[in-house]
Amino acid sequence: MSELSLLWNAESVAVIGATEREGALGRKPVAYLQRYGYPGRILPINPKGGTILGYQAYPSVLEAPGPIDLAFIVVSADRVPAAVDDCVAAGIKVAIIASSGFAETGDEGAALQAETVARARAGGLRLIGPNCIGAVGFGNKVMATFSPLFSAEAVVSLEPGGLGIVSQSGALGFGAASLGIERGQRPGWVITTGNDADVSALEVLAELASEPSCTGLLGYLENVPDVSALRSLANSGKPVALLKSGRSEEGGRAAASHTGALATDDRVLDAALRQFGIVRAGDIDELLDAGDAFVSPRRPAGPRVAIVTTSGGSGILAADDVVAQGLELTPLKDETRAALSEIIPSFGSADNPVDITAAVLSDPSLFDRSLEVIAADETVDMIIGCFCVMTDGDVDKAVRALAKVAEKSGKPVLVSRTGADFLAPNARATLREAGLPDYPSPARAVRAAAALWQVSKPRASEVLAGLGIETPAAELTEPELKALLASAGLSVPVGRVVGSASEAKAVVDEVGGTAVFKAVVPGLVHKTDVGAVKVGVSSADAAAAFDELSAFGGAVLVEELVGEGVELIIGVHTSDLGPVLTLGLGGIFTEALDDATSRLLPLAPGDALAMVGELRGKALLDGARGRAAADVPSLVRTLETVAALVSGWEGGFELDLNPVRVLSSGTKVLDAAHVIAKEA
Amino acid sequence: MSELSLLWNAESVAVIGATEREGALGRKPVAYLQRYGYPGRILPINPKGGTILGYQAYPSVLEAPGPIDLAFIVVSADRVPAAVDDCVAAGIKVAIIASSGFAETGDEGAALQAETVARARAGGLRLIGPNCIGAVGFGNKVMATFSPLFSAEAVVSLEPGGLGIVSQSGALGFGAASLGIERGQRPGWVITTGNDADVSALEVLAELASEPSCTGLLGYLENVPDVSALRSLANSGKPVALLKSGRSEEGGRAAASHTGALATDDRVLDAALRQFGIVRAGDIDELLDAGDAFVSPRRPAGPRVAIVTTSGGSGILAADDVVAQGLELTPLKDETRAALSEIIPSFGSADNPVDITAAVLSDPSLFDRSLEVIAADETVDMIIGCFCVMTDGDVDKAVRALAKVAEKSGKPVLVSRTGADFLAPNARATLREAGLPDYPSPARAVRAAAALWQVSKPRASEVLAGLGIETPAAELTEPELKALLASAGLSVPVGRVVGSASEAKAVVDEVGGTAVFKAVVPGLVHKTDVGAVKVGVSSADAAAAFDELSAFGGAVLVEELVGEGVELIIGVHTSDLGPVLTLGLGGIFTEALDDATSRLLPLAPGDALAMVGELRGKALLDGARGRAAADVPSLVRTLETVAALVSGWEGGFELDLNPVRVLSSGTKVLDAAHVIAKEA
Repeated sequence: MSELSLLWNAESVAVIGATEREGALGRKPVAYLQRYGYPGRILPINPKGGTILGYQAYPSVLEAPGPIDLAFIVVSADRVPAAVDDCVAAGIKVAIIASSGFAETGDEGAALQAETVARARAGGLRLIGPNCIGAVGFGNKVMATFSPLFSAEAVVSLEPGGLGIVSQSGALGFGAASLGIERGQRPGWVITTGNDADVSALEVLAELASEPSCTGLLGYLENVPDVSALRSLANSGKPVALLKSGRSEEGGRAAASHTGALATDDRVLDAALRQFGIVRAGDIDELLDAGDAFVSPRRPAGPRVAIVTTSGGSGILAADDVVAQGLELTPLKDETRAALSEIIPSFGSADNPVDITAAVLSDPSLFDRSLEVIAADETVDMIIGCFCVMTDGDVDKAVRALAKVAEKSGKPVLVSRTGADFLAPNARATLREAGLPDYPSPARAVRAAAALWQVSKPRASEVLAGLGIETPAAELTEPELKALLASAGLSVPVGRVVGSASEAKAVVDEVGGTAVFKAVVPGLVHKTDVGAVKVGVSSADAAAAFDELSAFGGAVLVEELVGEGVELIIGVHTSDLGPVLTLGLGGIFTEALDDATSRLLPLAPGDALAMVGELRGKALLDGARGRAAADVPSLVRTLETVAALVSGWEGGFELDLNPVRVLSSGTKVLDAAHVIAKEA
Repeated sequence: MSELSLLWNAESVAVIGATEREGALGRKPVAYLQRYGYPGRILPINPKGGTILGYQAYPSVLEAPGPIDLAFIVVSADRVPAAVDDCVAAGIKVAIIASSGFAETGDEGAALQAETVARARAGGLRLIGPNCIGAVGFGNKVMATFSPLFSAEAVVSLEPGGLGIVSQSGALGFGAASLGIERGQRPGWVITTGNDADVSALEVLAELASEPSCTGLLGYLENVPDVSALRSLANSGKPVALLKSGRSEEGGRAAASHTGALATDDRVLDAALRQFGIVRAGDIDELLDAGDAFVSPRRPAGPRVAIVTTSGGSGILAADDVVAQGLELTPLKDETRAALSEIIPSFGSADNPVDITAAVLSDPSLFDRSLEVIAADETVDMIIGCFCVMTDGDVDKAVRALAKVAEKSGKPVLVSRTGADFLAPNARATLREAGLPDYPSPARAVRAAAALWQVSKPRASEVLAGLGIETPAAELTEPELKALLASAGLSVPVGRVVGSASEAKAVVDEVGGTAVFKAVVPGLVHKTDVGAVKVGVSSADAAAAFDELSAFGGAVLVEELVGEGVELIIGVHTSDLGPVLTLGLGGIFTEALDDATSRLLPLAPGDALAMVGELRGKALLDGARGRAAADVPSLVRTLETVAALVSGWEGGFELDLNPVRVLSSGTKVLDAAHVIAKEA
C-alpha cells in the first residue's frame, strides 16, 4: 500500500491551523470530520491548545498522540515550512497543504514552494498541494478539506461509489463532484492537488486506479508532465476520462514549418490519450457523462451502435451523432430487420435507427421482443435507447426491458431521455439502479457511448521492436542522414555526393540522364527558398549546376529524379511526454491546412496504419482524377521503420523527413534533416 | 392577424374524436383544457353526443355552436378527410391533425395526406400535422395537445414567457420544452407540426416571430424546404436557434468532383443560417442554452469576451472555449489591467481571464469595482462570470454585482456556475430574475455567448446589384462561357478558338511563344484526364498540338500560359433553397480535403471576403515559403462578379469555374463549365 492511500485510509487526521472561529478555513475540516462522522482520531493543532469543537487541541503534531496518518495544513504560507518540518519529525507520511501563497503568486512564492518540497522530500513526507482545497475519501469519511460543499445545509451522502475524481483545480473538482452527486453519482474519492508541487494529480489518479474498489476515474488537469504516470494509469485497466485545459495555446504554438513544431504539447497529449485508451473530455458535462457510462461494468466489443427509439426525431439526431462521434451505425443483419418488421407496426422503422414508436412502448412484450432481437444481432456492440417525455410508469416498463437485454447480452445499453425529471421523479434512480446510464439528449448519450468505446478498444500490449541504432553523436548532414535511413531499410533516392563537375555529370548519367542537385551545407534548412536545389538537371547542364551549388560553400549531392506521388512529412521530436512521431500532409499544405497526426513512441502494431487513416487529406493517397493510388503499405512500413530507427535514441532531437513521397509503388524520403536539441 | 395565430388565440376549441374513456388520446385535450383553466369554449365532438368531462358533446362541428376558432382532430386516419370536410363546412380556419397513419407509413398514407391537404386548401382551412402532438398557447391556455407532459402529477406552470418552441417531432418538442421548464424557462408557445403537410414548422416560426410578446424562438426541424420563410424569420429581428437533423447524409452526398456537388443540402443550410444570423444548435442542450441566452434583452456589439472568475481552472477552460467558438478573448486595455491590478490580490490575475480569486468574492465591494472597470472597457462586448461551488449567499453577492454592471453597461453578462443546485437552492431563480443566464460549465456559457453574438451580428440589409445578364438559353461551351465571363468583367486567359494549325501557331506567338491548347467538345468535362489539354505548347509544336486536339472532333482553344498562383474552385448551383455560391480549395484537394464554403445568393457586402476567410486553406493565399501573397481583393471581386452575373438566371443550372487561379496580381478563370439542370 502506497503512502498516498492514507489520503483515504487515514485512521487519524491532524488539522494544522485548526480553530473554532466561525467562518475560518481552519475550522471547516474539523467541523466536517465531526459532522460526517469520521471514525478515526481527529487531532486539531493550534498553538493555544484547549479544545476545538470538543476535541482536544495540541500545540504541535509533535505533542499530539501518534501515530498520525495524515496532516491537513491550513496555516499562512510563511508558516508552512515549519509545519512541514514538524510533520517530518512526527513521522507523518502524507500532508495536504491547502494554504495559498506559493508558486501561483510569483517568484518568491515559487522559492518558498521549492523549499517546502525539498524539506518534505528529505524527510520522507509526500505533499499534496499547496493551493488546493484538500481531499475526501468517502469510504472512511476522511474529510480533509474546507470545500463549502460540505457546509451546505443539505448533507452530502457519503455512501461510497467506485468513481474517483482528481482535480488540480480545487473549486472545479468539488464543483464537478457536486454536479455528479446531484445526478446520483456516488464518488468514492475527490482529491484536489492544486500546484502539484510534489505529488501530481496524475500520480494520485494512478494510485486510485490500483484501488480494487475504484471503477472509473475522472480528472481535471492543467499540465501532464509525467508520461510514466499516464502509462501506468492507462495500463491499470480502469476507465479514465480527463479534462485538460490549455487547448487554445495549440494555435499559438503551431507556427514553425516542420512537423516537430506542428506537434505541440496539446496535440501530443491528444495523441497519447488516444493511444492509451483514455477519454479526453471537452467539458465538465462530458467528463461527468463519461463517469456515468463507466459505472456499468458492460463494455462494447466494437464501435457498432443500434439505436432504438420511440421518437423518430430522437433517433435521427442520435444517428447523426453516431457518425459525428466516429462510431458506426450498424445496418443490422437481414434476419434482424426481417424479425423486427414482424414486431414493429408499419409506421415504425425496422432499420437502424429502429423506431418502435410510442405505440410499442405501451406494449411491454413487443418492446421486449424488439430489444431481444436487436441485442442478439452480433453486428450490434452497443444499444442506445432514445426516449422523450416519459412518466415513471413508462420508465419502469422501458427499464425492465432494457435491463433485461443488457444483462442477458452483456452489451452496454445507454439511454437518452429528453424529458423533465418532474414528469418521472424516480426515473434517474431507477435507471441508475438498473445500470443504464441516462442522458438528457441523444448527443450526450452517443458521446458517452463513444467514451465507453474509447476505454474498451483493444490496445496492443506489444510494441514494435527497435533497430538498436545508437543516438547520432552530432547533427547529421543530409547525405549522412540518408545513408543512416538507408541502412535502417528506408528508401532514399539513388545518388551520392560529388566532388567535381565531371563526377556530377557521371552521376546524372547513372541515374537516367536527369537529376536533382542539392547544396549540402550544415544549418541550411530551407534549401529550396535560397536556390540551393536544382530539379531536372540534364547531363549537359550538370557542370554548370555543380559550379552554381558549390558556391554555397559545401558539398553537392546529385540524386535521381523521383516520379510523381503524394508528398507527406514524417517527423520525430522529443516532447515533455517523450519522443513523438508525426505524420502530416506535405509541402505548403502542412502549414496552411495543419493536417497532421501524432503518436508517442514506441508504436504498437496498427498505430502507423491508424495514423494514415487520421489524415484529413488521406483521400489523396487513394488516387484521384486518374492518378494511381499511392502505396499505403510502403508508407506504413516507412513510419514503422522511422519509429524503430529512433527507438534507442536519447536526449532531445528532431528528425524531419520532408518531403516523403509516396509513389504508386514504394515510398521515398526525398529530403531529411537532423537537429540535436540544445539543453534548455 | 394571420389565421395561424388562432393556434394560440383561439376563443373556442373543438376536439374531434373527444371521449371520456380513461387513457384515450381523445380524452386528454379536453382534460387538459379543463385542468389548466382554458377560458374559452370547449367543444368535444363525438358521434354519440352526451357529455364529456362535464362538457356538452356534439356529433359534429356542424352541430356545435359557432364560431369555432380551432379544431383538434384525433380520429383514425381514414376518418380524417371527412372531419376536414366538416371543419371547412363549419367555417373553421385552422385544424390540428394529431392522427398518425399518413405520409410516414408509405405510399397509401401519402395519398391520403395529399387528399386531405387538397380538401383543406380548397376550403380555406390551414392544417397543422398530421402525425403531431398538437400545440399549446400558454398565454390563453390553449391546450390543443395530448402530450403526457400535462397529465403528470406535477402541474406545469403556464405563466407565459416570450420563448416559442416549434418542432416537427412532437415528442422532442414537448420533451425539450419540459427540460426548459425544469430549468425555469417560461415558454409562451409549444407547437409541433409533424409531417408539415400544409403548414410547415418554419411558417409557424415566422408567424410567432411577428408576435410582439415573442422574445426568442427555438426550433427542431427535419427539413427546411422554404427559404422565403427562413428569410422572413431571419428578418423578423427575433433571435432564433434551430436544431436540424439529418446532418450525417452530408458525407454520403459529397461525392462528385465539382463544387456544386460539394455544396450539399446540409452545407447549404449551414451557409444560409450563418448568413441569416440564425443559430444552428448541435444538440437539445445547446438549443435550450441559446433559449436562456435570448431571454435577456442585452446584445453584444462584437465578439470580444472578458472572463471574470473566482476559480482559475474555470477561467482557463472558458478561455479555451472562447477561442474554439470563434469569439475573441479581449486583451483588455492597458488602463483596465492597471486598474484591476490595484483591486485584485497578487495571487489573482488582472489579465483576461481575470481571476479575482475566491478572496475577492467574499468582499462584494472589490468584486463590484473589478466588474465596473471591466464593463467600462470598450474592448469588452460580453462578460462571462465563471464560478464553482457557490452557496445562496455567494450567489446573492455575485448576482448583485453582475446585474448592476449588466444594467449599467448594457453588455450581456453570462454565468458559468459549476456547482450543484442543492448548495444554493435559490440560485437559478435569482440569476434568472436578474437576467443573467447561467450554465453548469464554462463551455456551455461560452457557446451560449457565441449564439448571442450570432443573432446580434450586424447583417447587411442591402445586397450586391446584379448585372442583368439573362439565363443562357443552352449550355455554353468553354469559349462561349469565357466570353460571357469576360463581358461580365471577369479575367480569363488571353486566347481564342483557332481553325487551323497556322492560326494556332499565330496565337501562340501572340501570347508570348508558349500556350495552352484545349479541345472544345461539348460534354467533355474532365479534359485533362483524357489528354484533351496540352500545357506549354511552343510555337514549333503548335501545328502538331492542333492536329492532335482536333482529333477530339471539336474546336481547339489556344490560350496564354498563366503564371503560378493559388488554385481555387468557384461554383454556383441551384439548391432547394435557391442559388448557392461555393468557394473551395482547388485541384484534387477539393475532394481530398473537402475545404469549401458556401453562401445563398444574392451576396451582401462583406460576404465574399468572409467566404475567403472561412477556407481552412486560407493561409495558402497569404504566401508561404517565399511565395508571393495572392491578390485576395481580386478574388473577392471575382466572387462578387460571379454572383452578380447569375443574379437574374432562372431555372436549375451549374456554373463551375475550375480552376480559378489567384495570382499575385489579379485572378484568372482558367477553365469553366456550364450545365443546365434537367427537370427532375
